[in-house]
Amino acid sequence: MSAARAVVEFVVTGDEVMRGTIADTNTAWTASRLYPLGLSLRRTVVVGDRGEDIRRALLEASSRADYCIVSGGLGPTSDDLTVECAAQAAGVGLRLDEPWLQHLRERWAARRREPMPKNNERQALLPEGAEMLGNPDGSAPAFSLRIDRCTFFFLPGVPREYQRILNDMILPRLARATGYAVLRTRVLQCYGVAESLLDELVAPIRAEHPEVRFGFRTKFPENHLSLAALALDEEGAARALAVVEAKCRDVLAPFIYGADGVTFAQSVGEQLASRGETICCAESCTGGLVAQLLTEAPGSSRWTTGAFVVYANSLKEGALGVSPEILCAHGAVSEPVARAMAEGARRASGASWAPAITGIAGPDGGTPEKPVGTVWLALAGPGPTRVKHSQYRGDRGQVRTLAAYGALQLVREALGAPPLARHFWEVGQGASPGKA
Amino acid sequence: MSAARAVVEFVVTGDEVMRGTIADTNTAWTASRLYPLGLSLRRTVVVGDRGEDIRRALLEASSRADYCIVSGGLGPTSDDLTVECAAQAAGVGLRLDEPWLQHLRERWAARRREPMPKNNERQALLPEGAEMLGNPDGSAPAFSLRIDRCTFFFLPGVPREYQRILNDMILPRLARATGYAVLRTRVLQCYGVAESLLDELVAPIRAEHPEVRFGFRTKFPENHLSLAALALDEEGAARALAVVEAKCRDVLAPFIYGADGVTFAQSVGEQLASRGETICCAESCTGGLVAQLLTEAPGSSRWTTGAFVVYANSLKEGALGVSPEILCAHGAVSEPVARAMAEGARRASGASWAPAITGIAGPDGGTPEKPVGTVWLALAGPGPTRVKHSQYRGDRGQVRTLAAYGALQLVREALGAPPLARHFWEVGQGASPGKA
Repeated sequence: MSAARAVVEFVVTGDEVMRGTIADTNTAWTASRLYPLGLSLRRTVVVGDRGEDIRRALLEASSRADYCIVSGGLGPTSDDLTVECAAQAAGVGLRLDEPWLQHLRERWAARRREPMPKNNERQALLPEGAEMLGNPDGSAPAFSLRIDRCTFFFLPGVPREYQRILNDMILPRLARATGYAVLRTRVLQCYGVAESLLDELVAPIRAEHPEVRFGFRTKFPENHLSLAALALDEEGAARALAVVEAKCRDVLAPFIYGADGVTFAQSVGEQLASRGETICCAESCTGGLVAQLLTEAPGSSRWTTGAFVVYANSLKEGALGVSPEILCAHGAVSEPVARAMAEGARRASGASWAPAITGIAGPDGGTPEKPVGTVWLALAGPGPTRVKHSQYRGDRGQVRTLAAYGALQLVREALGAPPLARHFWEVGQGASPGKA
Repeated sequence: MSAARAVVEFVVTGDEVMRGTIADTNTAWTASRLYPLGLSLRRTVVVGDRGEDIRRALLEASSRADYCIVSGGLGPTSDDLTVECAAQAAGVGLRLDEPWLQHLRERWAARRREPMPKNNERQALLPEGAEMLGNPDGSAPAFSLRIDRCTFFFLPGVPREYQRILNDMILPRLARATGYAVLRTRVLQCYGVAESLLDELVAPIRAEHPEVRFGFRTKFPENHLSLAALALDEEGAARALAVVEAKCRDVLAPFIYGADGVTFAQSVGEQLASRGETICCAESCTGGLVAQLLTEAPGSSRWTTGAFVVYANSLKEGALGVSPEILCAHGAVSEPVARAMAEGARRASGASWAPAITGIAGPDGGTPEKPVGTVWLALAGPGPTRVKHSQYRGDRGQVRTLAAYGALQLVREALGAPPLARHFWEVGQGASPGKA
């Protein structure tokens, strides 16, 4: 397959990136989209808004790469130099694209009363010989241009516009350029499996199915597997993807919680909503994180009634009815308190399910018996209350995130998901999974 | 000052970055540190773990830049090629650094029982002529090497190790190389001011004080101003910074909430703790975000008692005593409900202050009278309850963040901060501040 041999480069322009005022997020996003196509990026170059630097970056890529994607510098202001530099690097002049100029004028008239400033007409200029690709969400049009041996795609840098154009216009062209016509992708989102084990589990499937590309992406504490099938037609791509997806779902069954962009909490919430059930969490050390994750997605009022963040013992008593005797005898981070918090939250909210979390997130507050990372989880529901002890590794933020995921995982298991073994971020599970 | 003329480049290596498995965060962080020194980055190059690509990137930089920082590829495995490639690009061999080898052995023995694998000895190899810089947090040592006209600094890519070495070892060297000996920095963190206005307000001070460099960084919905003073001695740097900082604090007074890394919520929390006061929030549309922000920082139990996340009306009634009549007459997103939520949370928690938030985060749920972005805030405290209506722009996540900040700002104002005008992300405050 020619894809493996095609050289792709990426050029990012913008003073704001070079000054650290904004972070470039297009590079990682682009890399994760190209990799499954078999088009791995060979080089990314980031330069500021200086004509000399932009022209040099384009000319270098033109002699080395088959394809080059360029992000940024297509705005209407004087520091937007990409169109000019592209024309200069190609040794051609500029032409006015009349249909786009017309489009710009209509777009402006629909939004504002005053006439469009002369300056904005610049956004209808393209290098001679360039192919107009347009932009469904903005005024800066994407375009394509051949320079030397390389086909360039120029895109606006605003991530929302950039991503839509790359997905809808550029990736299909690149897929076709590999000799195939159709690309079908699936992202299997996993929780509770380390990247190295994930890789190991799917390795035999990967070896057996070279027609599907495998990619990995870490989003702490999750790991995602992306599958991409390239084929000559829809049916071929869909069939190849279906076969490999089924095999991967088989070996990864305990870990897969969703696909193609759902969040972990959302997958739990949607499952509850489909059963007509609700959730209300009692949170101590996570400080509202579970509630936050459960309500991030639109429509979350279908499954979330609310949450009790009970940081102080007085609130554990007052809002949830945890008895002062239990708190005094066992301490706030203990099995009986987690149990009483969960049962109290279920009683107070009337929700179907009430997880509870109490632990020591650190960096202070640890003792020899209850070191930083100690977390007690409980889940009150229709049946008997479940409890779980964990000892997580990591900093304050990591312990809080792991505890929140642990609580949601208790709900998943109560709803029928296969129980997970001890999480790989828990103490006693081998070396730290962080890369040295 | 020679700093302005020094050309600095940055090279990032790593297949994981090129595949999009992990995002490169070192580039933006490095850029934001170099800019205040007058050392703006001219180019960043990202390449995978291929010797040919790494050598080419180093040789290109060596002929063009005065300084080049290289991140990654110093680990013990076979895909860590940076040391070898550096030696090859410089045309020299490798030497074993005996003190570092000894250090590696001791480090290993302190952690594990089995002897150190032979492979790890690779991390004591440096190119001949390189200067060992070491690594206080890890086994991969940083080093410096001259190739052609350029001084290279090679650093491990792990962000925690990278940042400490750049801050403690590299930035002081670069500062000295500009002709000055001492660098003093201050970051003034602002809320409620658009980047363009921030820039405009400090422009006269900037023009008057070329001895201090100004930099800007956006962290939605905050904007940060960094000041960096370079001087020949401690006293000169401290004096120059103090003069400019005082002037900036003067013009930015209503907006500055903290400096040098404190978070917005933490600054509110610390202020409360210093007064012996506490906070407990009643959150509807923010779903626990305020609690989350207030408890992110260590020690937050000194100011947070907890929070009531009351998504469902039944919980607004049950947990906070909001009357069903008010809910029915005015709807959940209304002044009377916000007021009743705040007063109910203060009563139920015994906290000194209880902010309340009820609004429509979207994308669904808006009506002509209460469009998406409508938020009612209230604050119950020792005095009369305050209320505030806002109409924010943005997507679901942005509206939630703006509402959470708005509630914390109410607390700041109650504690004596100057009241802010309408926030620039509220409807009716000019064009969208996002860059087109």
